[in-house]
Amino acid sequence: MMHVPMTVGAMMEHAEKFFPKKLVHSQTHDKLHSLSYKEIGERVRKLMSTFTELGIKKGDKIGTLAWNHHRHLEIYFAAPGMNAVLHTINIRLTPEHIIYIINHAEDKLLLVDEDILPLVEQIKDQLTTVEAFIVMTDKPELPDSSLHPLYSYEEIISTGDATFPFSKDIDENDPAGMCYTSATTGKPKGVTYSHRGIVLHSFALGLADSAAISESDVSMPVVPQFHVNAWGTPFACTWFGATQVLPGPRFTPERLATFIEKFRVTISAGVPTIWIGLLQELEKGNYDTSSLRAVLCGGSAAPFGLIQAFEEKYNIPFYHAYGATETTPLATISRLKSYQHGLTKEEKLRERSRQGILVPGLEMKVKGKAGDVAWDDQEMGELLIRGNWIASEYYKDDRSEQAFQEGWFHTGDVVTVDEEGTIKIVDRTKDLIKSGGEWISSVEIENAIMSYPDVLEASVVAIPDAKWQERPIACVVLKDGVKEEGVKEALLAFLEPQFAKYWIPDDVLFYNEIPKTSVGKFLKRQLRDQVKDHYQIK
Amino acid sequence: MMHVPMTVGAMMEHAEKFFPKKLVHSQTHDKLHSLSYKEIGERVRKLMSTFTELGIKKGDKIGTLAWNHHRHLEIYFAAPGMNAVLHTINIRLTPEHIIYIINHAEDKLLLVDEDILPLVEQIKDQLTTVEAFIVMTDKPELPDSSLHPLYSYEEIISTGDATFPFSKDIDENDPAGMCYTSATTGKPKGVTYSHRGIVLHSFALGLADSAAISESDVSMPVVPQFHVNAWGTPFACTWFGATQVLPGPRFTPERLATFIEKFRVTISAGVPTIWIGLLQELEKGNYDTSSLRAVLCGGSAAPFGLIQAFEEKYNIPFYHAYGATETTPLATISRLKSYQHGLTKEEKLRERSRQGILVPGLEMKVKGKAGDVAWDDQEMGELLIRGNWIASEYYKDDRSEQAFQEGWFHTGDVVTVDEEGTIKIVDRTKDLIKSGGEWISSVEIENAIMSYPDVLEASVVAIPDAKWQERPIACVVLKDGVKEEGVKEALLAFLEPQFAKYWIPDDVLFYNEIPKTSVGKFLKRQLRDQVKDHYQIK
Repeated sequence: MMHVPMTVGAMMEHAEKFFPKKLVHSQTHDKLHSLSYKEIGERVRKLMSTFTELGIKKGDKIGTLAWNHHRHLEIYFAAPGMNAVLHTINIRLTPEHIIYIINHAEDKLLLVDEDILPLVEQIKDQLTTVEAFIVMTDKPELPDSSLHPLYSYEEIISTGDATFPFSKDIDENDPAGMCYTSATTGKPKGVTYSHRGIVLHSFALGLADSAAISESDVSMPVVPQFHVNAWGTPFACTWFGATQVLPGPRFTPERLATFIEKFRVTISAGVPTIWIGLLQELEKGNYDTSSLRAVLCGGSAAPFGLIQAFEEKYNIPFYHAYGATETTPLATISRLKSYQHGLTKEEKLRERSRQGILVPGLEMKVKGKAGDVAWDDQEMGELLIRGNWIASEYYKDDRSEQAFQEGWFHTGDVVTVDEEGTIKIVDRTKDLIKSGGEWISSVEIENAIMSYPDVLEASVVAIPDAKWQERPIACVVLKDGVKEEGVKEALLAFLEPQFAKYWIPDDVLFYNEIPKTSVGKFLKRQLRDQVKDHYQIK
Repeated sequence: MMHVPMTVGAMMEHAEKFFPKKLVHSQTHDKLHSLSYKEIGERVRKLMSTFTELGIKKGDKIGTLAWNHHRHLEIYFAAPGMNAVLHTINIRLTPEHIIYIINHAEDKLLLVDEDILPLVEQIKDQLTTVEAFIVMTDKPELPDSSLHPLYSYEEIISTGDATFPFSKDIDENDPAGMCYTSATTGKPKGVTYSHRGIVLHSFALGLADSAAISESDVSMPVVPQFHVNAWGTPFACTWFGATQVLPGPRFTPERLATFIEKFRVTISAGVPTIWIGLLQELEKGNYDTSSLRAVLCGGSAAPFGLIQAFEEKYNIPFYHAYGATETTPLATISRLKSYQHGLTKEEKLRERSRQGILVPGLEMKVKGKAGDVAWDDQEMGELLIRGNWIASEYYKDDRSEQAFQEGWFHTGDVVTVDEEGTIKIVDRTKDLIKSGGEWISSVEIENAIMSYPDVLEASVVAIPDAKWQERPIACVVLKDGVKEEGVKEALLAFLEPQFAKYWIPDDVLFYNEIPKTSVGKFLKRQLRDQVKDHYQIK
């Protein structure tokens, strides 16, 4: 059998050859672009020749500070295509973390969206490895800037070589990409993606039982391209020739809804908070969303009510998926098995609100208090995963030892597994509430609360308790116009029949907002502090 | 990124864990079996422990002479699962070739269906490496046989270890399987499949735009398990948890049609002659084939009329695919692109009767008389393929040099490519008819003839010609009850408007049968001799 290195560049070559007419629609600051894969391919080649002229060599890191658009997509292929490394940087992190990440990764080049230039100017003196900056803008002139040297993307690639070849000097295990993930404490941790991992992950995204990405799809990733490569969808969509819709900087739910209708989007991917926002927009406007065949939701557990609203009210198939920065990210996806189609509507929704079963190509085990847990949906344990698109370490980071042990990635997520092998995330190991020697899943209580009509968002955290060690407190954001009065009592009464008595929160606190991480997950650490303060103040 | 060897055994482990209840229905000589993947997995483990007791070691070849059934499927996973090699032997070859193959591969063990025992008894004294025989039968007693030592499959595995582990001592490039392919002249040539190749090929079979094999499928491979691993479908179907229907020994079109109805088969795969046979059966009987979502047809070009009959008369989606023993086999598959759905019914069928576009993960080029051909659907050239499920050589065979050059497999197939990148096989390099310095595609004329209502099968071959070098002659089998009289003239008149004048065959000969290879392809070499004899006799 031949051994041909699996490479990211070969995916773009496939698109250039077999899908040259298919389009990428891209919203930038100034306008909506539509480019074919033929054009994108040529621009990627020009970009590789430009990078080469700028002195970029094998293994060099190329940083991006950018939204979802076609230029960002081009760097996705140009950097690994020449055996350099695509390093997407989360623009929502603090300046301190961004400085740390760029220096730690040793980025040689930074490609920056025009509205992010001020941030980079502010930190430029603390960047120790960056040799040049490229601004991505539609404007013909370079913006006034203290960055130096600063090039304009369009200008610098305009003299590039549109036939520049993809590197053949690539081992499939070479790094193709990097992404840093926030840590609970301390600096962000870097994950390196290999060519092999990205190609195999793309295969997984194309499987009929997974995301089934195909040429006939119109894919709009709402998850940022700086967040685990927009879950790998730009790679898979390019390879399989799907139309792509990149919604650009600072998009609103309105823009998303408008694009879904305008481009007949068939598949989209994002975190629950995005879908909560879209849902509110759909309820306001009168959008045609009938083209959507799949909404992929991951990043944190989607509330049952959210899934129900999408499926029942808007007839939009909603797929719960699970993954992490360390897993490229697709690890599990929720789909009914063929013999489950006889379940009632309610049972089906209940089953589909789980995180689903492992994608082919990965292995998992669930470690409970005493070895592997039973698949009885009762016993809780930490999910461990291994496979070819799972990180083996954090980049140059001592914290690797905690998360990567004996060949397994320890996800830090606590799950139960039912007899079908579908997992349900019940908590983060660090967010589990330990009350009277028993484990309480904060996530399950949150989901129940969020299915209550008056509630927009909810988070449940532990407060220290002298008698029980820890007790759960519910933090709730009510929907617009709902008054707080009487809600606490009604909500607790609503929860009572659903849980064992010791699971019922000791209190319900109302907030205008739940603090969130840069990628839209509930920031429980901060919330716990707020809640603790609340009780101390009282 | 982790580097976890991709192995065939891991595919069965995935099925055991996530699809334990799903069934494999298997027809043997004596009865219809239904086993779950849980049971199959245990039997595979017992089989590995049995093979180990029989002295099978890493790299040893295990030969099978068997039809499509569950025991054969079990060996598919047990042999590579313990890092031995599955060697499926084509039972339709001549005894001389079977002897050659077994000795050349150095099979240590032979697993044989009971009705194939007489063949093995006949050749046993010429087998130089085989140490033991296992007969696959439902009967409790061993058949009378001169083979020694001879074990009964069910008896010998009954004491096996149902928890025997899949080998972890596997490099993904290790050989997992072997299959010999007939050569035009000389002995069959052996192809070795690696674990890596089989796993990646299985990914390709699961892609939404390829065969899209999924858990909800009921797959009945009609292509024999001894022919390129039933096109790899048993591996992919097991991995993805599809129900499998294995139609057993010496099946008839009636059995196939009955099974399609009985098991609600959704996908099936086979060569055109199988589908011609099934079509005749469907026309006779009153079968419910509404469950079929895909019939995959490959091995040789399917006549346009066949595709049309399946799609229009029976509403069965018919997918033309292309591959070879050397390509595991899936290389191209024909599907419309999303922007082609506006074509007329006729145009769509015409497009879909091509062999389609390259599957993601492979590379191709087409070498014409002067370098790579234009993608204009006019220029003919030989198809070259490379990728991770493409053979790199024939096993211990000097003929490797002809077919494998500079990292490419030279398929020997002549194609044209249209601007969409879809290929159309126009001939084998050796079957092209060279007339007056021009190339004539025998296959295109055959397809045109087979779309003529009176014709069942047709083959076009060259006869030597003093003036033109070669000229085409059509060999035709008429449908039951059609008289020869007048057909020749009508047929030539039918062809005239479709081709350049020099393409029109010089003569039409009528036969009761076209000679075929052991896997159902037209045997043109033999036909050419018959035709030459015909003209010499005249």
